[in-house]
Amino acid sequence: MIDLAARVTLPSPEILAAAWRRLDRLTKPPRSLGQIEEWGARYCAIRGEVPPPPLRAGALVFAADHGVTAEGVSAYPAEVTAQMVLNFVRGGAAVNALAREQGAALRVVDVGVRSDLPPHSGLLIRKVAQGTRNFLREPAMTAAEAEEVLRGGFDAAQGMAREGVTALALGEMGIGNTTAAAALSAALLGFPAPELVGPGTGVEGPALERKREVVEGAFRRIGPGPRPPMEVLRQVGGFEIGALAGAILGGAAAGAAVFVDGFVVTAAALLARALCPQAMAYCFPSHLSAEPGHARQLESLGWEPPIRMAMRLGEGTGALLAVGLLRAGLRAFVEMATFEEAGVSDKREPGGGT
Amino acid sequence: MIDLAARVTLPSPEILAAAWRRLDRLTKPPRSLGQIEEWGARYCAIRGEVPPPPLRAGALVFAADHGVTAEGVSAYPAEVTAQMVLNFVRGGAAVNALAREQGAALRVVDVGVRSDLPPHSGLLIRKVAQGTRNFLREPAMTAAEAEEVLRGGFDAAQGMAREGVTALALGEMGIGNTTAAAALSAALLGFPAPELVGPGTGVEGPALERKREVVEGAFRRIGPGPRPPMEVLRQVGGFEIGALAGAILGGAAAGAAVFVDGFVVTAAALLARALCPQAMAYCFPSHLSAEPGHARQLESLGWEPPIRMAMRLGEGTGALLAVGLLRAGLRAFVEMATFEEAGVSDKREPGGGT
Repeated sequence: MIDLAARVTLPSPEILAAAWRRLDRLTKPPRSLGQIEEWGARYCAIRGEVPPPPLRAGALVFAADHGVTAEGVSAYPAEVTAQMVLNFVRGGAAVNALAREQGAALRVVDVGVRSDLPPHSGLLIRKVAQGTRNFLREPAMTAAEAEEVLRGGFDAAQGMAREGVTALALGEMGIGNTTAAAALSAALLGFPAPELVGPGTGVEGPALERKREVVEGAFRRIGPGPRPPMEVLRQVGGFEIGALAGAILGGAAAGAAVFVDGFVVTAAALLARALCPQAMAYCFPSHLSAEPGHARQLESLGWEPPIRMAMRLGEGTGALLAVGLLRAGLRAFVEMATFEEAGVSDKREPGGGT
Repeated sequence: MIDLAARVTLPSPEILAAAWRRLDRLTKPPRSLGQIEEWGARYCAIRGEVPPPPLRAGALVFAADHGVTAEGVSAYPAEVTAQMVLNFVRGGAAVNALAREQGAALRVVDVGVRSDLPPHSGLLIRKVAQGTRNFLREPAMTAAEAEEVLRGGFDAAQGMAREGVTALALGEMGIGNTTAAAALSAALLGFPAPELVGPGTGVEGPALERKREVVEGAFRRIGPGPRPPMEVLRQVGGFEIGALAGAILGGAAAGAAVFVDGFVVTAAALLARALCPQAMAYCFPSHLSAEPGHARQLESLGWEPPIRMAMRLGEGTGALLAVGLLRAGLRAFVEMATFEEAGVSDKREPGGGT
């Protein structure tokens, strides 16, 4: 994936500095809008303009099935993946409502749902296979499939950027995918196998124990040691996680702000970082999921998500809420008066702070 | 203020239960939208309807001056209060941009600015005095002034509710008001005097030390022991804090959701709770301020704010961002399909979770 990673360049430090100069002249104590200001400055650098150009939001949701559901790792049957994709294209899911709230175009991409879905204008088919294989027993996919799905995600993000999207919220649907995300994240971070396993959609008790055993069993099958990121993806999947990592690279290469959702999308961010560290300069964390392993992933990325509402739905719901925070912050950036314009004293008292 | 407190009744537990029944049928694992769902259910109970009726946002910003600025407790000169009020009425401040982003009507209320402000349609004059007295040396206001300012805030909130506002974001402007808020909060919570003192707009070093000494000195003047809440307000102020406490009661009495901003508005929430505990059922926390004492106030209220962006501007900026989160959540509540409507399996696997 070296060719895709090479297409990502870092945002301009000169534009970043110019953004801060502007922000520090606005009628507020310097830096008193905290992360709202940081996000505004980063958005300017990403888009290459001060003041920031208008934000156009888009949401990209990748769906796929997981062979590992045969081991009983999820609270829901695997057919819910396809059912929820139909719910997305009909507009009835949480991500639809939140996308409408943000004025975000929503595109759903089938990168590996087990059944064939009826054609729909909001549904892009980039299906690599009818679900991954059961990663407890064998590799989830082939090396060729891993590369294909990553390219599919890259292309989907580039497509949205070409249509004018400047802030891309990433989401996913895939019964079983918190199991794959836990395995992939632990492998990439060098954590013990079960360390990031949690309840997902709601397993508990013996089923949660089984979920841990499945990831442990998979690690025994794979064997010890650090592995190249694409090999980790091949071993545990899933297709939507690979596509999400590709979408992070694709969004970054296109100069879009990329909003990372919860546990599963953050697993994809870990994969994207391993493939292309500079892509992280385009990523924005959104919320801290109720899924316990999310905090560990975020810590490893050095990210402090702005929203803490104990959400654990996925689909891109947290990412879309965070897009709203950036949009509000950009409005303040663009519309606030400077001290000079407003006739407000910027001369702070002697002894008075920064 | 017993008559005002008596006008607040608790939201309906029956409507709350009906809201949860509806939420649990929507296409998502139960409770997987976390606090977004809790807020939606609470909003239904507050408004008395399931599904939730449309949200209409309003922002109410109270401004006043503080005699204690004579002690050098702020990074900015006192005249900035009036200058910023003019900035508000002209639309150039952060709160204006964020109010526009939320489609919120903004009303600014002068309850005690030191200078006389020119009339403006967006500015309500309920001035009690030309700033409080210096609470290091003498009580900040008289008992009659304390009552008058609380009633002014109550009336302003009731007025916005009469105009159709269902979600009220509260904000403030007043150079010196983090000093008053720290003193008021410590007195109400029984904390040692300087425990909640922090940098505010940006004092540090010797100036921050002076700010602590001022609050300690005021506590020595006032003498030990718990005091009735209105007496605490009289002793340390400020006018905008009293008005904010009144606005919380007024919003609650009118059946509005009341969004509490950062350190200063949360001080007012502590005062409102002391006067009328049931008003807390109408309050929504917004963000965790960078002002260190805010976490202590929130802990005492048992509130977990959804936004953590290290903001410390005040004005109602955090409260307005949180209104956007409620609005997005209500949209999901109203627009999401149920499992039946969407044809999605709600039958979770045996062993699967809650």
